[in-house]
Amino acid sequence: MITSADNQHLKTIRKLREKRWRARTGMFLAEGEDLVDAARTASFEEEVVLVGGVDVEGELLASASTLGSGTRVIGVYRQRWSQPGGRLSVYIEGVSDPGNVGAIIRSTHAFADGPVVLGPGCADPFGPKAVRASMGSLFARPPARAGLNRLTGTLVALDRAAGRPLDELELQAPVVLCLGAEREGVSVAVLERASEVAHIPMRAAGPESLNVAMAASVALYAAARRMAADG
Amino acid sequence: MITSADNQHLKTIRKLREKRWRARTGMFLAEGEDLVDAARTASFEEEVVLVGGVDVEGELLASASTLGSGTRVIGVYRQRWSQPGGRLSVYIEGVSDPGNVGAIIRSTHAFADGPVVLGPGCADPFGPKAVRASMGSLFARPPARAGLNRLTGTLVALDRAAGRPLDELELQAPVVLCLGAEREGVSVAVLERASEVAHIPMRAAGPESLNVAMAASVALYAAARRMAADG
Repeated sequence: MITSADNQHLKTIRKLREKRWRARTGMFLAEGEDLVDAARTASFEEEVVLVGGVDVEGELLASASTLGSGTRVIGVYRQRWSQPGGRLSVYIEGVSDPGNVGAIIRSTHAFADGPVVLGPGCADPFGPKAVRASMGSLFARPPARAGLNRLTGTLVALDRAAGRPLDELELQAPVVLCLGAEREGVSVAVLERASEVAHIPMRAAGPESLNVAMAASVALYAAARRMAADG
Repeated sequence: MITSADNQHLKTIRKLREKRWRARTGMFLAEGEDLVDAARTASFEEEVVLVGGVDVEGELLASASTLGSGTRVIGVYRQRWSQPGGRLSVYIEGVSDPGNVGAIIRSTHAFADGPVVLGPGCADPFGPKAVRASMGSLFARPPARAGLNRLTGTLVALDRAAGRPLDELELQAPVVLCLGAEREGVSVAVLERASEVAHIPMRAAGPESLNVAMAASVALYAAARRMAADG
């Protein structure tokens, strides 16, 4: 059993909390039993897996974790990236909150057959908060990294109010739903390249915008329902 | 200008970070210009408002804030609660993450005319994280507190897979969408009292469930679209 904080595996785990180190090594962490189970289900090979009280003293594992006490297992994995594609997928730009990136990965997994494609300015999907928010969908459906010019098919730019209501569009697969940063919305580059501009109908007396993860979820649901109805 | 951490207003602000103190006093905080602006727009009377560098030394304000450096203004307000009602509203139970509670308040404001009704086991909607996630919708549309027996109209229990797809229901207003804790789902009490059980259609190969705030947002959108189409 590991009894020293100087252990090499614990050092690796502590370093992988940092984005810089994840980028350099191409590795990342899954903290907690649910995520480690999800990694196994998706056949991610464990580079290291430490179980508190078995492989390592519980307190040492907790101190290496971003979750603190209560973390019973941590796994180290090699990052996987998908290619853009699928009948329905999502492209995001400037989504800097890792919780939102993880939540969008989870909702995309629920409604679409394609991945989340990360454009510039997004939080690292392999950071601990994003991994946690994805609830295992990160393993089942790894994200893609690509610029706008790599995307093909019907690009739908989601705007706050411009264009038509999303569920009134005729959507010709493959469809890529494009969302931008929460405050700024989609970029001019996306608007120029988009085949369609659409919005999610909201009450006039409501807020100016939705949280970007909520907007992505609603858009995915609406597009998936529309595409299923159109066959 | 306030130059001491012992100042009474700063003490109040620090105490209001705690749920216990908010419950005892019925007060809460808005941190940051956007939220203080939202409070003004919604005519919430400021009990205290402190601007860093004007009313108080910037560092002292930052140290009283849950946000740390960068907080330029903090306001103290009296909590307001709505009554259940509206053509469309949401009832949640066991939603213990304050970010989710705040996000559901924001999405409900976007799609429904009624409030979020908080049943047992929910995070305090007036806690700093929930206030921030609500992005001002907390002020525009304060939540309600009520048990199941206070709800009237068509109660739709959202389940993971049971019942019919939500957008295939005929929804007779007033409609209350009922959601439960993320892991457990809606309670037996909700299922027994519900007029309808419905689910959000997802891919079979997808995750077991959606994040509860995503599920609420999609359900609100789907119900609002359906009710608008039915007139």
